[in-house]
Amino acid sequence: MFTQDMLPTVLRHEEIARYSDGVLYTLDRRKYPLRREYVALYSVEEVHTAIKEMVTQGGGPLELALKALLLARDGKRDLREASLILASSRPTNRTMANTLNVVLQRVEKGEALDDVISSILSEYDHAYDAMSEYGASLIKDGDGILTTCFAEHSFLLSVKKAYLAGKHVRVYVPETRPYLQGAKLTLPSLSEMGIESYLITDAMPAFFMQKGEVNIYMTASDAILPDGSVSNKIGTLENAICSKYYGIPYYPFSLKNSFNDDIRIEMRSPDEVLSVNGEYITDSSLNALYPAFDIIPPSLITGIVTKDGIL
Amino acid sequence: MFTQDMLPTVLRHEEIARYSDGVLYTLDRRKYPLRREYVALYSVEEVHTAIKEMVTQGGGPLELALKALLLARDGKRDLREASLILASSRPTNRTMANTLNVVLQRVEKGEALDDVISSILSEYDHAYDAMSEYGASLIKDGDGILTTCFAEHSFLLSVKKAYLAGKHVRVYVPETRPYLQGAKLTLPSLSEMGIESYLITDAMPAFFMQKGEVNIYMTASDAILPDGSVSNKIGTLENAICSKYYGIPYYPFSLKNSFNDDIRIEMRSPDEVLSVNGEYITDSSLNALYPAFDIIPPSLITGIVTKDGIL
Repeated sequence: MFTQDMLPTVLRHEEIARYSDGVLYTLDRRKYPLRREYVALYSVEEVHTAIKEMVTQGGGPLELALKALLLARDGKRDLREASLILASSRPTNRTMANTLNVVLQRVEKGEALDDVISSILSEYDHAYDAMSEYGASLIKDGDGILTTCFAEHSFLLSVKKAYLAGKHVRVYVPETRPYLQGAKLTLPSLSEMGIESYLITDAMPAFFMQKGEVNIYMTASDAILPDGSVSNKIGTLENAICSKYYGIPYYPFSLKNSFNDDIRIEMRSPDEVLSVNGEYITDSSLNALYPAFDIIPPSLITGIVTKDGIL
Repeated sequence: MFTQDMLPTVLRHEEIARYSDGVLYTLDRRKYPLRREYVALYSVEEVHTAIKEMVTQGGGPLELALKALLLARDGKRDLREASLILASSRPTNRTMANTLNVVLQRVEKGEALDDVISSILSEYDHAYDAMSEYGASLIKDGDGILTTCFAEHSFLLSVKKAYLAGKHVRVYVPETRPYLQGAKLTLPSLSEMGIESYLITDAMPAFFMQKGEVNIYMTASDAILPDGSVSNKIGTLENAICSKYYGIPYYPFSLKNSFNDDIRIEMRSPDEVLSVNGEYITDSSLNALYPAFDIIPPSLITGIVTKDGIL
């Protein structure tokens, strides 16, 4: 089992969601690593807004939503109403709604809320540990690894375990516009973990594939569809197609073995594409489009890394 | 023949390089469209630096370098030495060196420098006009067009001529990090020309291809290699591979019918990837890589649009 000190700052439990006396604190991932600031949240509505505004991201929203139930309980709020408010913050990702439901069912059956949350977070940690064992086994000494966005525990622990096993690896990290999670989260996390890593723009992966410097592509995934497609951050499809073209294996990680049959691609605000860190990069009256996720068909996927093995 | 008023601001001769009484003025494309500022250049060394710092871009450097010869002449500089200084500003692109050589040869044979420059610029305009006739003929009514970076006259005039011929088109414009030429030049230019256009990030083209909304991919090119490959802005390879995957034709435009046998891929400063408009997006001590150009193999190219037809 991995220890918290194997993780980079942004993935440690106390940084993602620390609940204390009616206040929920979360590291503001939008500002990290330039500034290390925490957002203090006092209600489930504030947690909903924080998640919608991407204060945290990836697995962060789920962990934050779970801890927000403590906020709701201590504020004498109805837990089921609180849970609906929290789940509505991420329409594309069903995991949050499902997990919050499980918590409510267990609490209604008599378990203590704190214990249920701890046991669910511990289950996740065990799943991450198992996934990263499989992930690390796919990485060879000398590999150049491409990723997209911020693939969190499963990916970062895979790379770390490969590294601790003596494999020399380097990671190419696309910046992941518009939110720049690659630049802000993945790159500093890898560096903090001692892994050779390089920031590139989102248009550069094929260049390094063509040169033979990328040998494996690994990402997170937001959902698996019934036909075996996965959804993940916009840009994953582009890289999966290029990986296929160059014969490079593509492995998404997935915590879920269940399938989502109804996937909605969130169209987010065009303003986010027209700006970087809140500053417009061009005339703000021009048009832009921001689909947040790609659907990657099974023909482009070498295997899905789950806690039970590689599908 | 197209008229100057068919062109967007950034492509008009007087905006790219206006020489007057020992000063060469050029629209600062790094600031456009947020600010319309001109850089005043007083020596060939300053022109060299301006080109290296991407004050202008695409065909801009060539036009600026040609006009810089007037600056050199009026400053009583040796034209051959001036020409070497100017040409060394763009190691990947041989066109500038070759064109400056032609100018010097014609001047040495007795032609007036002003006349030679005018006749060369007029030759280019005729070539753009011919290329955009071929380009427009490839665009069908209802097409969604993908481009990369800023493909200038040949592309913009192709779209404009298709539009004037009654074809309804829309253009998807990747922002083109790190310099954001798509966001700053292509998008406002298309809008100024009355063309429906949308800014997207560099990772989104495959999403729109998958949805069937992109029907043709058109870019500029910096050079054609002897094997029929073209070099163009980083990101072109990624989109050309995805176009091939979805059966979408890819047409680069090329002014040259001659081949370059020695192509050097410029590795530019990592700082440019670590920052946007001069502001760091992540910890500035981290690693980044910035290859400036892609090489696209002939198997991914449907045809090269030249002034003499489609190769």
